[in-house]
Amino acid sequence: MLPVTLTTDFGSRDPYVAVMKGVILERAPGVALHDLSHDIGPQSISEGALFLATALPWFGPAVHCAVVDPGVGTGRRPVAIAYAGSALVGPDNGLFARFLLAEGLARSSAGSLELVDCKAVALDESKFWRIPVAPTFHGRSIFAPVAAELATGTDLSVLGSAISALAGLPWPEPIVSGDRVQGEIVHVDHFGNLITNVEPQAGAAVSAVTIRGRRIDAVVDTYGAGRGLIALTSSSGLIEIAEVNGSAAALLEVVVGEPVTVQTTLAASTSG
Amino acid sequence: MLPVTLTTDFGSRDPYVAVMKGVILERAPGVALHDLSHDIGPQSISEGALFLATALPWFGPAVHCAVVDPGVGTGRRPVAIAYAGSALVGPDNGLFARFLLAEGLARSSAGSLELVDCKAVALDESKFWRIPVAPTFHGRSIFAPVAAELATGTDLSVLGSAISALAGLPWPEPIVSGDRVQGEIVHVDHFGNLITNVEPQAGAAVSAVTIRGRRIDAVVDTYGAGRGLIALTSSSGLIEIAEVNGSAAALLEVVVGEPVTVQTTLAASTSG
Amino acid sequence: MLPVTLTTDFGSRDPYVAVMKGVILERAPGVALHDLSHDIGPQSISEGALFLATALPWFGPAVHCAVVDPGVGTGRRPVAIAYAGSALVGPDNGLFARFLLAEGLARSSAGSLELVDCKAVALDESKFWRIPVAPTFHGRSIFAPVAAELATGTDLSVLGSAISALAGLPWPEPIVSGDRVQGEIVHVDHFGNLITNVEPQAGAAVSAVTIRGRRIDAVVDTYGAGRGLIALTSSSGLIEIAEVNGSAAALLEVVVGEPVTVQTTLAASTSG
Repeated sequence: MLPVTLTTDFGSRDPYVAVMKGVILERAPGVALHDLSHDIGPQSISEGALFLATALPWFGPAVHCAVVDPGVGTGRRPVAIAYAGSALVGPDNGLFARFLLAEGLARSSAGSLELVDCKAVALDESKFWRIPVAPTFHGRSIFAPVAAELATGTDLSVLGSAISALAGLPWPEPIVSGDRVQGEIVHVDHFGNLITNVEPQAGAAVSAVTIRGRRIDAVVDTYGAGRGLIALTSSSGLIEIAEVNGSAAALLEVVVGEPVTVQTTLAASTSG
Repeated sequence: MLPVTLTTDFGSRDPYVAVMKGVILERAPGVALHDLSHDIGPQSISEGALFLATALPWFGPAVHCAVVDPGVGTGRRPVAIAYAGSALVGPDNGLFARFLLAEGLARSSAGSLELVDCKAVALDESKFWRIPVAPTFHGRSIFAPVAAELATGTDLSVLGSAISALAGLPWPEPIVSGDRVQGEIVHVDHFGNLITNVEPQAGAAVSAVTIRGRRIDAVVDTYGAGRGLIALTSSSGLIEIAEVNGSAAALLEVVVGEPVTVQTTLAASTSG
Repeated sequence: MLPVTLTTDFGSRDPYVAVMKGVILERAPGVALHDLSHDIGPQSISEGALFLATALPWFGPAVHCAVVDPGVGTGRRPVAIAYAGSALVGPDNGLFARFLLAEGLARSSAGSLELVDCKAVALDESKFWRIPVAPTFHGRSIFAPVAAELATGTDLSVLGSAISALAGLPWPEPIVSGDRVQGEIVHVDHFGNLITNVEPQAGAAVSAVTIRGRRIDAVVDTYGAGRGLIALTSSSGLIEIAEVNGSAAALLEVVVGEPVTVQTTLAASTSG
């Protein structure tokens, strides 16, 4: 039996997560459940998409059930996607887009995602749902029972109608012009570190990062190096701004969406 | 071995939950532990009772250990209740009342709960406790080890003296007068949705909900329908007020206890 | 296979905890993971140390992986310690100091910890790490994969070079003078209870506690006893100040570090 991970924007005070756990355990007694986060920003599909793109690549075979679902009960489809021994289950609203694109499991095509090397279904076989269906809580009625089915080995293809494309997700792409990259802050983490949407480019080294009119020349390898504001490459491969022993977000009063400019220079080549 | 669920008001910063997990795992190595919530409002028995009544019906066989326990170490009894292959473990302070009443496992009788179709004991057999007993932390000393015993198959009857009634819980019941129901807000969820204590009545449709002098005529099926303030039936079967893509709690500045009036009309009958 | 517990200051919104879970499950499929807390104060080694000293003694055999690591990527060593069928994995920055000292597994020696009855290694065998190594996230690169190795039975000695001392942790020790003990608040819990660094002394009873100029004479056994401000011995054996049905922290406006004076009297002996 595969483990099931749970990622939602349900928070920790309400019974919604508990209800999903109950439904999954009832259908798949003994399945291992792993909370990834229930504190995705309420209804923030893009925050959920970045979270999943960062976390899921580190897992072996698992069923990843994710629910950030402002469109629940409207026309947006519930979907499941199978890839490399694992599966994704959730709403078709772009929540899985960053992960699928980064892993080469999808490519952008006119605002939607064309799937590559993976299979997907719209979850329209109601015999796998948990009755009664709640129009406002597909986590309970559809995603949890389907995740349990997939964990116990039910084949994806019986859960619904095959589909070949998913909804895309608008995403701020960095703009490269010469030795400058214009990007923005896409996440502020628990420590007040500011994660940008800019990846270091092959063959170029970051020499400075400018945000809110402040130029940060201390481009370092880790938080313990340097003092004050520093720039470094985050563990997920994106350029990030931190304050040593402090919170860059508090110091700079920055929230998601703030523009940043990354200055690069030709890097000394380090290996053949 | 049955899984054990944990529901407390201990929060996530202190070691209290961890201590309970340690005690349970020591007594029942390999048992599956599932966090339901540790963010029940501090010492709010009624919030815990509503949480459990909403979450527990979705579980198959399990031991549900719940601790919201302002009276720890006083005369209130520690108890365990067995029903339908599952068990509840916690303080006898009304925490399980809403669940037991909703499931037909108890009926109200002069302020207390008379048990029906289930067995209960006062946990007074100290040989099943974790020594040394902490007067301020029965979660560690009594509830955790007893939950572990029940998970591993120890019979309820050996854990203490049989009892047939539990402490009740004061609860605001809605008042029906003609086509109006006078209720109140009993929970504000993570999204700012306002959950009332009013269930839709058989044969009547909700036509409007009034709160803080505002009449909401948009009675819909799901969050994605309508705009602004809407009323709908929540996934747990109670009437709820939401703001589409917003927080009704923030907009209306409402907290638990706020009165609401639900206006109903005779529903068109939909089936024989 | 041993269970693995996780204690971090990573919070619940970022993918860092999820990434560690993925790495552990990939290396040790089926291992039981238990969250202890991810809300240790950001970069607060002393808060983490107190948490672990309180929680870990209640566990049977387990691998305890803990990450509060402001010095990640600098000279501080990653370490693992084996004791009594269990293991600790984390940074060598004092995080385990309070636990090791309390359990008699280490003694203070000139600011560092000399290990007693346990084995420890510096984690310098990179073949057990998860590649690529992230300079800012040893939780992912070193601690998670090593915890998985220990859970599956890999011997500590192959994971790195044997060491016999660890970094110590500055800690406020109470000062006893006659019948008075001068201490301070070392933790404010979720309920607003104020935990001091003072343990009741053998043969002496606490008669009063003074904080912020207020003398508390109500020295009781449990929260439900007395009214207003009370003093009692916490479940972890330290003297604590609480407000019955309230928050002592809010009432007294106290944070960690606030001085307290504990007045004792010769206790009536209670047993031979």
